[in-house]
Amino acid sequence: MALRTAGRQSLVDTVVDQLKAQLTNGEWAVGDRIPTEHELAEQLAVGRNTVREAVRVLVHAGLLESRQGNGTFVRSTADPSAVLQGIRAADTLDVLELRVALEAEAARLAAERRDTADMVALRGALRTLREHGDRAADADMAFHLGVVQATHNPAFIEVYRFFSVQVHESLITSLRDQEMPAIDLDTHEALVDAIESGDPAAAERAVRELLREPLAAVRALAVRG
Amino acid sequence: MALRTAGRQSLVDTVVDQLKAQLTNGEWAVGDRIPTEHELAEQLAVGRNTVREAVRVLVHAGLLESRQGNGTFVRSTADPSAVLQGIRAADTLDVLELRVALEAEAARLAAERRDTADMVALRGALRTLREHGDRAADADMAFHLGVVQATHNPAFIEVYRFFSVQVHESLITSLRDQEMPAIDLDTHEALVDAIESGDPAAAERAVRELLREPLAAVRALAVRG
Repeated sequence: MALRTAGRQSLVDTVVDQLKAQLTNGEWAVGDRIPTEHELAEQLAVGRNTVREAVRVLVHAGLLESRQGNGTFVRSTADPSAVLQGIRAADTLDVLELRVALEAEAARLAAERRDTADMVALRGALRTLREHGDRAADADMAFHLGVVQATHNPAFIEVYRFFSVQVHESLITSLRDQEMPAIDLDTHEALVDAIESGDPAAAERAVRELLREPLAAVRALAVRG
Repeated sequence: MALRTAGRQSLVDTVVDQLKAQLTNGEWAVGDRIPTEHELAEQLAVGRNTVREAVRVLVHAGLLESRQGNGTFVRSTADPSAVLQGIRAADTLDVLELRVALEAEAARLAAERRDTADMVALRGALRTLREHGDRAADADMAFHLGVVQATHNPAFIEVYRFFSVQVHESLITSLRDQEMPAIDLDTHEALVDAIESGDPAAAERAVRELLREPLAAVRALAVRG
């Protein structure tokens, strides 16, 4: 008897969850080859197509890796989509606190490592910000990403990019336009100056100053309910 | 003519990439309903099964959301698996720097917010660490997660959990056993004391002190090549 589509869909999801559990529980370690499609289909009492679809989901999620003609291997036991779910479950305030953590340290590292190209980019981003007035959300995002790029740390840049989109989406759905704090151009300039003069402590202070108002606006919202 | 399995597999991957591009390029915004399976199949000139499989991958990745009988909606335009790839491409040193950022701020927040249950958990984790000697990697991970849990910020906890697994996997593949720095039990205790006495600055100092040696060990390795 052929399973209906709806049934097959949820079956794949169930197999995805079972395989994920084996990965995050530590049953399979990074570098391990997992059982073949045939073996998994037998163990889980499902069809090979179902196993194949579930494995594909986990390959795209970055947890498994297929090597041509050699089988499927564990690439990571940390599930990035669980991180995304944790962040969705969190308040805007929680995500903003996370951004403070990333951006304060990024400013310190940027002050130690910035090169000429970084400074040209940051001065340019500051100019764009001034030209777009004090409510230019996109220009502001580009400026802050510029600071993080001056760390020359690809892990930092990728994670920050992810969170800045999250914070942005979260702010525009939770704050009304008139509640968005104005962009403080002088403190943005102080941050660029601190990075240029190689002063990590001043750079971190400027970031904390810049993010104080958005934090206060979101805290006020949380109290109001 | 039926496509062979290998052909169909890579076709699904191509469709996943095309849909991802439309999401991350901003062509579709959060909350938008995407075209139906039938419309996408026509637009992309592929079969409906291929579209269905590709959509499933993106639902599991947290980018799309299926609402029963109502269609498929955009849940996020930030791709968590891209973050994972960025981190894999980065050096252990880069990921450790990211961990410093998260953990320094987490220690500050923990000192402001810890409750009685947090302190019981942290004292217990410290005791376990002492009992397991100075090379108990798992007990150490549990201790540091305990600090982050005392922030009571679910976004922080989820992201930190993700990175601590990454750092752990990255350290064990890049450092030989004898190169792993010994665990500094006194500074761990100083961190717990600072959190208990509600001193954010002292808590942050203890974290930076704790992570100085692992950073130095990995920097030495990077120089050695």
